[in-house]
Amino acid sequence: MNIETLQAALPEYFAPWVQALGLKVDAFDQHGVTLRLPQDDQLSRAGGMVCGQAMMAAADTAMVLALINHFGEFRPCTTVQMNSSFLKPLSKQDALIEARVIRAGKSLAFGEIDLRGADDGKSVSRFTTTYALL
Amino acid sequence: MNIETLQAALPEYFAPWVQALGLKVDAFDQHGVTLRLPQDDQLSRAGGMVCGQAMMAAADTAMVLALINHFGEFRPCTTVQMNSSFLKPLSKQDALIEARVIRAGKSLAFGEIDLRGADDGKSVSRFTTTYALL
Amino acid sequence: MNIETLQAALPEYFAPWVQALGLKVDAFDQHGVTLRLPQDDQLSRAGGMVCGQAMMAAADTAMVLALINHFGEFRPCTTVQMNSSFLKPLSKQDALIEARVIRAGKSLAFGEIDLRGADDGKSVSRFTTTYALL
Amino acid sequence: MNIETLQAALPEYFAPWVQALGLKVDAFDQHGVTLRLPQDDQLSRAGGMVCGQAMMAAADTAMVLALINHFGEFRPCTTVQMNSSFLKPLSKQDALIEARVIRAGKSLAFGEIDLRGADDGKSVSRFTTTYALL
Repeated sequence: MNIETLQAALPEYFAPWVQALGLKVDAFDQHGVTLRLPQDDQLSRAGGMVCGQAMMAAADTAMVLALINHFGEFRPCTTVQMNSSFLKPLSKQDALIEARVIRAGKSLAFGEIDLRGADDGKSVSRFTTTYALL
Repeated sequence: MNIETLQAALPEYFAPWVQALGLKVDAFDQHGVTLRLPQDDQLSRAGGMVCGQAMMAAADTAMVLALINHFGEFRPCTTVQMNSSFLKPLSKQDALIEARVIRAGKSLAFGEIDLRGADDGKSVSRFTTTYALL
Repeated sequence: MNIETLQAALPEYFAPWVQALGLKVDAFDQHGVTLRLPQDDQLSRAGGMVCGQAMMAAADTAMVLALINHFGEFRPCTTVQMNSSFLKPLSKQDALIEARVIRAGKSLAFGEIDLRGADDGKSVSRFTTTYALL
Repeated sequence: MNIETLQAALPEYFAPWVQALGLKVDAFDQHGVTLRLPQDDQLSRAGGMVCGQAMMAAADTAMVLALINHFGEFRPCTTVQMNSSFLKPLSKQDALIEARVIRAGKSLAFGEIDLRGADDGKSVSRFTTTYALL
């Protein structure tokens, strides 16, 4: 795997509205993938806080890339379920979204995602997901 | 409450990227609010299916409007948790998102959201949410 | 389907510790199954409130019976995911647990469960579940 | 904090049916608490697998102890929401349940729980929870 392949998956497999998040592949290893969500007024509510909708979209997207990384290629899959917990607000900084595959079987895969501030490193929101492998 | 007040909340309280979903307030009653998500290629992956990220964003947004409807005015609140289940794909039609407040206490509110095809009426995804009232 | 068949599934497919809940099949129809959880000091914390652990166990159990009802027979399945929301406390009354299958495909089934007071009819906790059909 | 204080919380704050799980406090540190769920036929379905209901009950219980550990004393709290994911079956061994407080604010606390086989160390189920501090 390499960063270019993962980055190229974004325009290939995601809706234009999701691409508008401007996600960048930051890192990957055998456990998962980390994306960067750049600070962007388009994603912020009054008060400058990043909206939760953007965090959920980034988390779901990051997990699809983590599955590509895990399998070494894109496999058709669909999100079955995602649970999102919002711990604290995020403002005035990029976010780093770290997605890890915690188990991948024949038909289901489970993942966990942590979204944290890129500057202060504090965890902002957490996600658990279940994917069906088609 | 009236539809204009609810519709006006969308540009007032939501990020521009969320506004780009093009949500329209379709109906409201004492139980909740129904929004319409118009079919839009910007929200679709290859294959024409509406992306799950847009469904989650629409559901979270619909629940904020349902809380405005419930309280008769906007009250500062934050999503604490949202659980999303994706039952089947949606393509080639608008979606209707029905958000209902199932309990609102002093500090927490609980909601349930159903997203279904506007043409075939079939349930596509379901969401449960917890909001903190600030 | 009949109530005796559903009731007989409890000792056949569930652990003794789950059977100790004393669940009774109350009703069923084409949409789902309703169980009754009798008031029992063994399930209560100090203060007389039914513990959340018992509610979750009853909900998970009710959904397995709803799947038996849906398919007309027991099919091997496993809970993949369950989300539990606790709206308010329950005390001094039985609970009714209504489990409905909202979609059953070839490999996955989705359900929703409502637990309410048997006397006051008020919703106490809500659950959404995903089952893998084996 | 010490193990005796945490162990003593089990008969003090939990229903007898939950105490019947036989949970033992195994360890604690500044991040959380680890409990042991002994292998027990009462908790097993046909086939010897530990039932999911027992795992959920153990996870919820472990998080209450983690909050006692975090605050240095019992504070009245109530589970608002718990999400449970079941990754694989567990049989023929004890389980270790590690509960960590990932954020505790004035009115809400968030936790994550991992349940793994005590012998093979493999993660079996994962839980995320939200508690309201009363």
